[in-house]
Amino acid sequence: MAQEIPYKIYLEEKEMPRAWYNLRADMKQKPAPLLNPATGEPMDAAGLGKVFCDALVAQELDNTTRLIDIPQEILDFYKMYRPSPLVRAYCLEKKLQTPAKIYYKFEGNNTSGSHKLNSAIAQAYYAKAQGLRGVTTETGAGQWGTALSMACAYLGLDCKVFMVKCSYEQKPYRREVMRTYGASVTPSPSDTTEVGRKILAEHPGTTGSLGCAISEAVECAVTNEGYRYVLGSVLNQVMLHQSIIGLEAKAAMDRYGVKPDIVIGCAGGGSNLGGLIAPFMGEKLRGEADYRIVAVEPASCPSFTRGKFAYDYCDTGRVCPLAKMYTLGSNFIPSPSHAGGLRYHGMSPVLSQLYHDGYMEAVSVHQTDVFAAAEEFARVEGILPAPESSHAIRVAMDEAIRCRETGEEKTILFGLTGTGYFDMVAYQKFHEGQMSDYIPSDEEIAASLEKLPKVR
Amino acid sequence: MAQEIPYKIYLEEKEMPRAWYNLRADMKQKPAPLLNPATGEPMDAAGLGKVFCDALVAQELDNTTRLIDIPQEILDFYKMYRPSPLVRAYCLEKKLQTPAKIYYKFEGNNTSGSHKLNSAIAQAYYAKAQGLRGVTTETGAGQWGTALSMACAYLGLDCKVFMVKCSYEQKPYRREVMRTYGASVTPSPSDTTEVGRKILAEHPGTTGSLGCAISEAVECAVTNEGYRYVLGSVLNQVMLHQSIIGLEAKAAMDRYGVKPDIVIGCAGGGSNLGGLIAPFMGEKLRGEADYRIVAVEPASCPSFTRGKFAYDYCDTGRVCPLAKMYTLGSNFIPSPSHAGGLRYHGMSPVLSQLYHDGYMEAVSVHQTDVFAAAEEFARVEGILPAPESSHAIRVAMDEAIRCRETGEEKTILFGLTGTGYFDMVAYQKFHEGQMSDYIPSDEEIAASLEKLPKVR
Repeated sequence: MAQEIPYKIYLEEKEMPRAWYNLRADMKQKPAPLLNPATGEPMDAAGLGKVFCDALVAQELDNTTRLIDIPQEILDFYKMYRPSPLVRAYCLEKKLQTPAKIYYKFEGNNTSGSHKLNSAIAQAYYAKAQGLRGVTTETGAGQWGTALSMACAYLGLDCKVFMVKCSYEQKPYRREVMRTYGASVTPSPSDTTEVGRKILAEHPGTTGSLGCAISEAVECAVTNEGYRYVLGSVLNQVMLHQSIIGLEAKAAMDRYGVKPDIVIGCAGGGSNLGGLIAPFMGEKLRGEADYRIVAVEPASCPSFTRGKFAYDYCDTGRVCPLAKMYTLGSNFIPSPSHAGGLRYHGMSPVLSQLYHDGYMEAVSVHQTDVFAAAEEFARVEGILPAPESSHAIRVAMDEAIRCRETGEEKTILFGLTGTGYFDMVAYQKFHEGQMSDYIPSDEEIAASLEKLPKVR
Repeated sequence: MAQEIPYKIYLEEKEMPRAWYNLRADMKQKPAPLLNPATGEPMDAAGLGKVFCDALVAQELDNTTRLIDIPQEILDFYKMYRPSPLVRAYCLEKKLQTPAKIYYKFEGNNTSGSHKLNSAIAQAYYAKAQGLRGVTTETGAGQWGTALSMACAYLGLDCKVFMVKCSYEQKPYRREVMRTYGASVTPSPSDTTEVGRKILAEHPGTTGSLGCAISEAVECAVTNEGYRYVLGSVLNQVMLHQSIIGLEAKAAMDRYGVKPDIVIGCAGGGSNLGGLIAPFMGEKLRGEADYRIVAVEPASCPSFTRGKFAYDYCDTGRVCPLAKMYTLGSNFIPSPSHAGGLRYHGMSPVLSQLYHDGYMEAVSVHQTDVFAAAEEFARVEGILPAPESSHAIRVAMDEAIRCRETGEEKTILFGLTGTGYFDMVAYQKFHEGQMSDYIPSDEEIAASLEKLPKVR
């Protein structure tokens, strides 16, 4: 097609996807089921229904329905901040002097600052539809908590957020954004839950962890009438909701007859990566097209590249179902010097299965390289990226530089998941040369993996 | 027109304006010229050329050319973050149960977080085209400094920002965003300039003011070879560049056959308001259409509603030209309890003349009412607004509520200039009930106005 490609491609409202795409329907080898941590048996709808609301349980367990209609109220909410732009990175291409064509799908143009809102509104909607009073969740850096607060404010649903204590203290702005949206924000571990009190007794002065905040949020949900727990990543349902990212990206590229050679996304729990790659991976699974699909993770939390594909606990308090995934062990906590997010010890079971079956690649990158890419990107493309997103930027730039060397005109698509406005402390460390690269030793990872649960 | 109006209207890239609209060309009574503070004579191009770069001086003095072509390099930069969306506030309408139709032009979807980037790139471009090494400026809350840093990074131009000291200390994130874009950021007053040293000697321990930072930035520009000073508001050239806001808004409305009855914008120095209203005011001046045009300012810094239309100093150090404008006196500093921005003592000469001639209205609002509107807006429309922008939200909501009472189906357009991510300390004060409304006394304003310069 000779048509000139604009800097930004926005789908029209009427072109927006009206159904999510369930990648599992096209997977020959389905992701392993969640297991009951007490019995080791697969979780059924009744068991999951104590923690999650019913419609989401159905989505969690549905491995066969390819397209799931997006309810009208969610579509209406999506229209407030979607479609997100697919950006042709002309300025970055010029800066890198590469023949590669670089595109990114930018999910940061909403107040939560990331793609998390795509699943937050879906989960809040189904909770509301079930007549619940509210939802509970955990948040680390705060993107997910912010997104959920926004969704709940919109629907008039109560929202209780357990925020990892060190983030609560170091990111007061994030906390206030959530409060602006009417959420209650509790630093975790707290004395409001049994598991929190237990952790505080065992580790006085702890600054908390994501795994610990998850345990508190789950306890809070199951012990409060009319509440359920919601989670921003890892789960199958989240991959489903986030498919909106990839569906829009593909529709925008199709409009101009463009096909990516490489699709790149950062991976913590997998919510962005799973969403971005969904329709491309679908074509690959069905044998209709081939794409290189690359997951990028921090070298300081390398679950794909150095973890084990096994059943593991999802939380510190071990109250959640077990998931089969690439994991570093539920006790693994990245070094405090790590500032780039993507800190979760495990990975989406869907993505884990696909990686295990050879459908995608994974690479890990050092954080100083990530921040260098972030700064270079910010200066030419204007957008200040989140550290998480900058993992994908780093690898996209590396691929484009390789094209400069080989002369190949590859088309690269990456996910720019969000903005870094609340991460300026990390940027400051980088500017002042005080950021270090930490790589866990083999012994450290092995020690953490020793504590995997025993599953038949 | 029966066509359904989407939540967000994006112009296509090819529909974007290719020329700025110079409102002065349609004003019968032109804005008064800038005067040399030493001689009281109108500033000519040679005089202004010592402070501003040549092309911008020409734009500053041009009262007759109606359309001024936007250079291609600026158009290319605009494509990175423009067109900005014109949003139909369906959710806010529903919340207010109003028959009014509310639209807002949202300028916050870029990393500087506001409309300031529209003029920053223009001013940086012309400085670069003149072969300059760099530019100097001041910044208060930091939106303008961030925007200029981004524009300079893109063009490879040096950028020296004097940041009001209390902001420098209270807004470290803002400072780091500017540094990410390679700007040098100096807390003002500083010992790097003569005027700074003088102010520090007279007022040791001062936390600075915008007027003082302007003086330092101007001195820095005129004493450094290859530098010029740039300013983010007040000037005629800034109104010109910001006309892109109104031109896009009008084109988007025209596409659906919509005409606003009321156009509302917040007003500090006037950059957003002047830009938003430009094409509407143009039709009004030419007698082609009529619109109610409303400026909204803080009750704690009420230059339109309680100031005097007179020549005044633009800065504390009195090194800048004098401007004829609505002013509270150059010594006027809003109460420290004021957190909503829009703190400048004066107002754009273009807007001042139009207000004086009866072409627009002005209202002032209390800051607790402004933050209440901000929070309500955030919860239903999803966007966390800047306090500045929330002045316009307040009045738009008030007008919509009035329509609910009268049953009128008015069409309201307001400018949503930016996002409030760096203003969470102010939001926190509001949440905690620690925000007060300060209104300067008549005596306070009169005392400040006593020190206006004597001009024939």
